[in-house]
Amino acid sequence: MKKKPNFVLMLHDNIGYGDPGCYGGGLMRGAPTPRIDKMASQGVRFTNFNVEAQCTPTRSALLTGRLPIRSGTSFITPPGHIYGLAPWEYSLANLLSDTGYRTALFGKWHLGHSEGRLPTNQGFDEWFGFPNSSDETLYASAVGFDPSYARVPCLWEGKKGDPCREMEPYTIENRPLVDEMIAKRSVSYIHHQAESDQPFFLCVWFSHPHHPVLPHPDFADASGNGAYADCMMEIDHRVGQVLDAIHTAGLDEDTVVIWASDNGPESVPPWIPAGDTGPFRGELGSVFEGAIRVPCVIRWTGQIPQGRVTNEMISGLDIYPTLATLAGAAERVPADRPIDGVDQSAFLLGKQEKSNRDHVLFFIQNDLYSIKWKQFKVHFKDVVQAPGATGQLPYPAFVHELSAPRIYNIVQDPKELYDILLTNLWLFEPIIKIANEFSESAVHHPHIPTGGDGPIA
Amino acid sequence: MKKKPNFVLMLHDNIGYGDPGCYGGGLMRGAPTPRIDKMASQGVRFTNFNVEAQCTPTRSALLTGRLPIRSGTSFITPPGHIYGLAPWEYSLANLLSDTGYRTALFGKWHLGHSEGRLPTNQGFDEWFGFPNSSDETLYASAVGFDPSYARVPCLWEGKKGDPCREMEPYTIENRPLVDEMIAKRSVSYIHHQAESDQPFFLCVWFSHPHHPVLPHPDFADASGNGAYADCMMEIDHRVGQVLDAIHTAGLDEDTVVIWASDNGPESVPPWIPAGDTGPFRGELGSVFEGAIRVPCVIRWTGQIPQGRVTNEMISGLDIYPTLATLAGAAERVPADRPIDGVDQSAFLLGKQEKSNRDHVLFFIQNDLYSIKWKQFKVHFKDVVQAPGATGQLPYPAFVHELSAPRIYNIVQDPKELYDILLTNLWLFEPIIKIANEFSESAVHHPHIPTGGDGPIA
Repeated sequence: MKKKPNFVLMLHDNIGYGDPGCYGGGLMRGAPTPRIDKMASQGVRFTNFNVEAQCTPTRSALLTGRLPIRSGTSFITPPGHIYGLAPWEYSLANLLSDTGYRTALFGKWHLGHSEGRLPTNQGFDEWFGFPNSSDETLYASAVGFDPSYARVPCLWEGKKGDPCREMEPYTIENRPLVDEMIAKRSVSYIHHQAESDQPFFLCVWFSHPHHPVLPHPDFADASGNGAYADCMMEIDHRVGQVLDAIHTAGLDEDTVVIWASDNGPESVPPWIPAGDTGPFRGELGSVFEGAIRVPCVIRWTGQIPQGRVTNEMISGLDIYPTLATLAGAAERVPADRPIDGVDQSAFLLGKQEKSNRDHVLFFIQNDLYSIKWKQFKVHFKDVVQAPGATGQLPYPAFVHELSAPRIYNIVQDPKELYDILLTNLWLFEPIIKIANEFSESAVHHPHIPTGGDGPIA
Repeated sequence: MKKKPNFVLMLHDNIGYGDPGCYGGGLMRGAPTPRIDKMASQGVRFTNFNVEAQCTPTRSALLTGRLPIRSGTSFITPPGHIYGLAPWEYSLANLLSDTGYRTALFGKWHLGHSEGRLPTNQGFDEWFGFPNSSDETLYASAVGFDPSYARVPCLWEGKKGDPCREMEPYTIENRPLVDEMIAKRSVSYIHHQAESDQPFFLCVWFSHPHHPVLPHPDFADASGNGAYADCMMEIDHRVGQVLDAIHTAGLDEDTVVIWASDNGPESVPPWIPAGDTGPFRGELGSVFEGAIRVPCVIRWTGQIPQGRVTNEMISGLDIYPTLATLAGAAERVPADRPIDGVDQSAFLLGKQEKSNRDHVLFFIQNDLYSIKWKQFKVHFKDVVQAPGATGQLPYPAFVHELSAPRIYNIVQDPKELYDILLTNLWLFEPIIKIANEFSESAVHHPHIPTGGDGPIA
């Protein structure tokens, strides 16, 4: 390998675990996904890839390697709030930029919608896309919407050093076209970067299949199985466009390509049924497996063994330190704050059989909802809302939430139906240890409140 | 091809759609299934293979090509009843026997437990196994069981022409060993038949993973994920033993191998959680997809294209006419009774893209519970029990059951959650046509009541 590898991180919005063909969907769900399936056969396919319960926290976890509750990004904030990645965060784009990478993000951000918290403020050289979420395209045509009270959502673009600018309203009319725009920018970027000696980090954060579920006109009725399946066909096509660009640019062996969903599907009328969670229960906004276990495929031609399928536990948090290592920049991972991701590079490259992770913590808003440890998952049902809802940890979180936990064996019981608490109280020993370690770290490194600017300590 | 192909029909008892690796289970479910997965890669894997809601009717459908309600086998009958395939039925074993095949069944029968209704009465040259179901192994050790009131279930064997005989009690002690016995007899049979010029039809109807979920000692704790996963590992191993026998006998290209589950999983304490239905709802005894859609793989080296995955609709009913055609004996399929299976040989061999079937009817006991047509599934919830419960059709069945149907689009909504009735009443046109065709056929060919001896007309 002559230079540092490029990274292309494709993310789709709310695809269910059971939707892609290689995850048991595809034709069975009315939409073949040959490109994603082929990419899986050329790399590693994860069957235990864990993300956060919602868009914002997953994207935060990917870009910081930190549990979103630490950075004030543990939930989706309604318009009007200041939110997003605080300037103090050192994003993966910052890190790779400082390592000599060119960086770009095309598509959905959802990590801030005010100047100072946009992609070009967080390490990306350039950005085209939309700051929040595609449901906002419904605003302008909503009954009673009044732009004197709320902003009309827009498509934005910007380059580092200059303020980002609103290009045009992001509405129900251009919502079907936005993934084509994102793909076109990405393809053009890849071809352009291929002429450079610098490696690049490209985030392609598509809008589909988030509601409103409106495929590009080229894919409308393409599946014969409704708009969601049409979107899945478009999704597969867009992934193919990006992969084709990498190939025709001669960058297959120089590029680590990651494709994933940001969280499980959601059911929003009239776009129901939408995504399918496959064998799992729950959906977006819960911490059942249907919400937090998503499809993820990683390919690096010539480096990652082909056709591997693994049920080893991985988290979206791990992308940060793993890519840092692959870029030869592990020393740039901040030491002054908790980094919850673990370096999975050796596992990814097939140099070690096991993941470096045996547990994941799942938060919703300010509360620890669940801990997954090995094949077990403890749910803390009676969660206590943090005082003031500022994102601060209600320490000691675990004790408050112990009143009625449920435990599932997710290998034996992927649908999380059979509570095994009463015959498995021993599990609290490792679980309490994990919870206490987190609580301890939060005492030493208090969370940044939502909208906060930097470290509290 | 020099001679007629052999047929090996392996059936497992209550495996869930989501259990095998090639169906999204495997490692994710704590038990790798490399042999089944490899067999799938060498043949065709069905993602829309439909069976009946219970053991007895599925086995009846496979062996007669007739909807079990027609033959008095539409439900599991409790001990004490006369039940099973009436002598009048012309089983696949009869048909292939008359075509020059040697025939054997090793394992579970569940199509009669009295002389005259055992495998060797229904066209099989020989049988080893158990007449009913493995739950009976619990009888002898059940609190209060008294053998003066109910028979101690046994392992049986027999050869055509002689009465079958009880060999030894089938109990909790030898229940873990029975699949090894079945595999050994099958392997030996295959090697023996390889020396013959006659083709053979071998049914290998294993006991696992039906409750009591007790793996062979060689597999106890093999998975580290409990008894069900251990059984799945044994299941894969047993499939491998049969495939190895076919291979070492040099019969790969001469043998059509079918592997399937007889119906979805069931949850019987203390063996819960057991099988997983993958993306589907429901389990054994219902007509939700989790009950009636099962894993099925068919391999015929050199004849069936490799690595095909199809969501085309197939029914267990189709095995009968399909195998008859592959054996060059289509003309032996009876013309004096309704045959509900359709010949899928051209589809199976890759000579045509589409299945010859676009609908399936699902009965429980005497009632039409559901019709699946293309991507739609109509459930008739308020089913009316047939008068006298004799298996006779409550004609006109459909009108009685129309009061509160539900309709699901199983491609868009594999979990059958969203009723689309009120916006899709048009669907009743094709559905009523299908129901009426069935009703009409039942008028001309009245059903054989359970325990009945032959045609009523």
